[in-house]
Amino acid sequence: MKYAKWMKNVGEGFIGEMLRAAQNPEMISFAGGLPALDLFPTQDLQAAFQKVFEEQGNAALQYAQTAGYPELRSWVASQHQRSQRPARTAEVIITTGSQQGLSLLAQTFLDPGDTVFLETPTYLGAIQAFEGFRADFQMIPCDEEGILPDELEKALAFATPKFLYLIPNYQNPSGRVMGLERRIELLKVSQKYGLLLVEDNPYGELRYEGEPIPHLAELGENVIYLGTFSKVLAPGLRIGYVLADEDIIRHLEQTKEGVDLHSNNLTQRAIYEYLQKDLLPDHILKLREVYNVRRKAMVESLQTYLGDRVEMKVPAGGLFLWAKLMGVNNSFDYVQDMIRQNVLYVPGAVFYADGRVSNEMRLNYSCSTPEIIEEGMMRLARGLNQ
Amino acid sequence: MKYAKWMKNVGEGFIGEMLRAAQNPEMISFAGGLPALDLFPTQDLQAAFQKVFEEQGNAALQYAQTAGYPELRSWVASQHQRSQRPARTAEVIITTGSQQGLSLLAQTFLDPGDTVFLETPTYLGAIQAFEGFRADFQMIPCDEEGILPDELEKALAFATPKFLYLIPNYQNPSGRVMGLERRIELLKVSQKYGLLLVEDNPYGELRYEGEPIPHLAELGENVIYLGTFSKVLAPGLRIGYVLADEDIIRHLEQTKEGVDLHSNNLTQRAIYEYLQKDLLPDHILKLREVYNVRRKAMVESLQTYLGDRVEMKVPAGGLFLWAKLMGVNNSFDYVQDMIRQNVLYVPGAVFYADGRVSNEMRLNYSCSTPEIIEEGMMRLARGLNQ
Repeated sequence: MKYAKWMKNVGEGFIGEMLRAAQNPEMISFAGGLPALDLFPTQDLQAAFQKVFEEQGNAALQYAQTAGYPELRSWVASQHQRSQRPARTAEVIITTGSQQGLSLLAQTFLDPGDTVFLETPTYLGAIQAFEGFRADFQMIPCDEEGILPDELEKALAFATPKFLYLIPNYQNPSGRVMGLERRIELLKVSQKYGLLLVEDNPYGELRYEGEPIPHLAELGENVIYLGTFSKVLAPGLRIGYVLADEDIIRHLEQTKEGVDLHSNNLTQRAIYEYLQKDLLPDHILKLREVYNVRRKAMVESLQTYLGDRVEMKVPAGGLFLWAKLMGVNNSFDYVQDMIRQNVLYVPGAVFYADGRVSNEMRLNYSCSTPEIIEEGMMRLARGLNQ
Repeated sequence: MKYAKWMKNVGEGFIGEMLRAAQNPEMISFAGGLPALDLFPTQDLQAAFQKVFEEQGNAALQYAQTAGYPELRSWVASQHQRSQRPARTAEVIITTGSQQGLSLLAQTFLDPGDTVFLETPTYLGAIQAFEGFRADFQMIPCDEEGILPDELEKALAFATPKFLYLIPNYQNPSGRVMGLERRIELLKVSQKYGLLLVEDNPYGELRYEGEPIPHLAELGENVIYLGTFSKVLAPGLRIGYVLADEDIIRHLEQTKEGVDLHSNNLTQRAIYEYLQKDLLPDHILKLREVYNVRRKAMVESLQTYLGDRVEMKVPAGGLFLWAKLMGVNNSFDYVQDMIRQNVLYVPGAVFYADGRVSNEMRLNYSCSTPEIIEEGMMRLARGLNQ
């Protein structure tokens, strides 16, 4: 079969192997990026779906507008500033999860071979979304606050990327945060060169330390912002959104029309119904509380059982802990040993678009209890010491 | 802003104008392709969602498998034959509506400039989905049963398309059906040349006359089949599926992972729950009955009020009536007059990928009562006679 050139050989790949391994009930998986299943506001969502069925019935089951349910778009706009003024409804498009936002942006902006700038390392799903439209990647050097503005400026002297993709809050996989000063410096460079920024913020509300920092989209111009209900509400509902200039939203809408016509109408209305009850702020507080306990448990048991083998920075928010395995060349090499110990992590290499070797690993702490986290860390230590 | 080259100027386009016009409550729109809102099995779907919330709760809100909810995939497989044997679960992928199936196929198979063969005319949404991946189109001449095998063979002498896209049952927009003989002849040609067929069947169950005809995918090899719950259940839920060889499904899965990770988990489970109650067959009987009445009403009032001005063939199923405006050069020219009369149709030209002028119009009869259809036809006659 003659597939498109960008398609890879999809035989027995690494991700398939990990997924199969994760299905073993004995397995402790730190490899996913799942929110905690038992914290979903299932009853409140059930009530919201019920109410939509009762009050809007058939209308919620019909074809709908490509840009999204108007009330939900307005709600999203009401929560956001763009360039220091309130966002407008016409600056919002609802997407089938934030992942679709990335894919729509790629389809709307990229011609094959166009360059996309990435953080080093970055979210695997973004690499996959952009690869699907034949992006060329350039990874911009980062420090513990993310993109280095000087390095970005150097790179811009030699390349004209369509956009720079970044996650300023509790980055996936590194957990790092871009401070306010750095954001302002970055915007100076991006505005000087007319560089479009794609600011992805799935984890921003999952803050366990420090104060919230204004989004790039709030501080400057020429920023596309991606948000999602997956991490604060429920990922299985697949509802996210993009905020951008109206002209960009209209183009994304044109793309989305060919891609899936519109996102699930019933679900958009039910989420709006849920939001109307103003339950989300308390729910987020609860998530922060539980995830913070799990974060601490992971940091502590990592130090207890692998203290001499790892180097890491405590993440101030989000879902992930990122650690270097000292004295190890490639964290990929230990995955099989770990599967035998019934524990999983994601080896760092998959978060680099240039295929480099990495001694890092990404560990998810949001969906395991402290007890399971401790048991998992013991298994990790056994796997490393074999 | 530098968008990808395939993007069109999305200013004040025709479709936007039509959509805005359709929002006027005085408007009678035959322009959509909407199922009848009042026929949705809303209570049964509500019960299905309730049951999923109660019995599966959190699990239905979590991230899920890219290929779809396994039970729903198995159900789809159980309903289908492929190449004269039962379909397998691994041959099914669940998509975010059938529209996503088209887009995933385009992304998975097309390199920019690859050729896609189309019926003449064909579904606008397919043109849009394939355009998003820079397809070159070749329209294969058709008669009242669709693709002419001789013409296809001639075209294959000069071009190597990635696939031929067709709607054998109650085609959109023409309403025509490809008979069994024609299907067999077409498969002979496609198999001789190793041509992949993409068989889209959203309307197959909406049959008002005649006997069902085996799908191309049932009769031969090398056929990708697209199905959907949009027309038989509810389009706002955005659940469709693709049936194909396992290798193709695995590639579509890889593409979908970057595009939206997976389709709405809760909704897939609720649809499966609904299907388990075996309510669909009776629901389809009811749709056939009501739509058949509306089809007859449209045919009759078209003959009454526009008998001397139109040429048409009565469709044996589906949602659309396709008619030629006699003595008219371009049906686009009358759209403004019709908007003034508060009635809408889709001018034929949009269903041709080559931008030709057409004197045809597509009229949807499924979402208007016989009374409204009659009133609409009177308005059409007035618009034409102005």
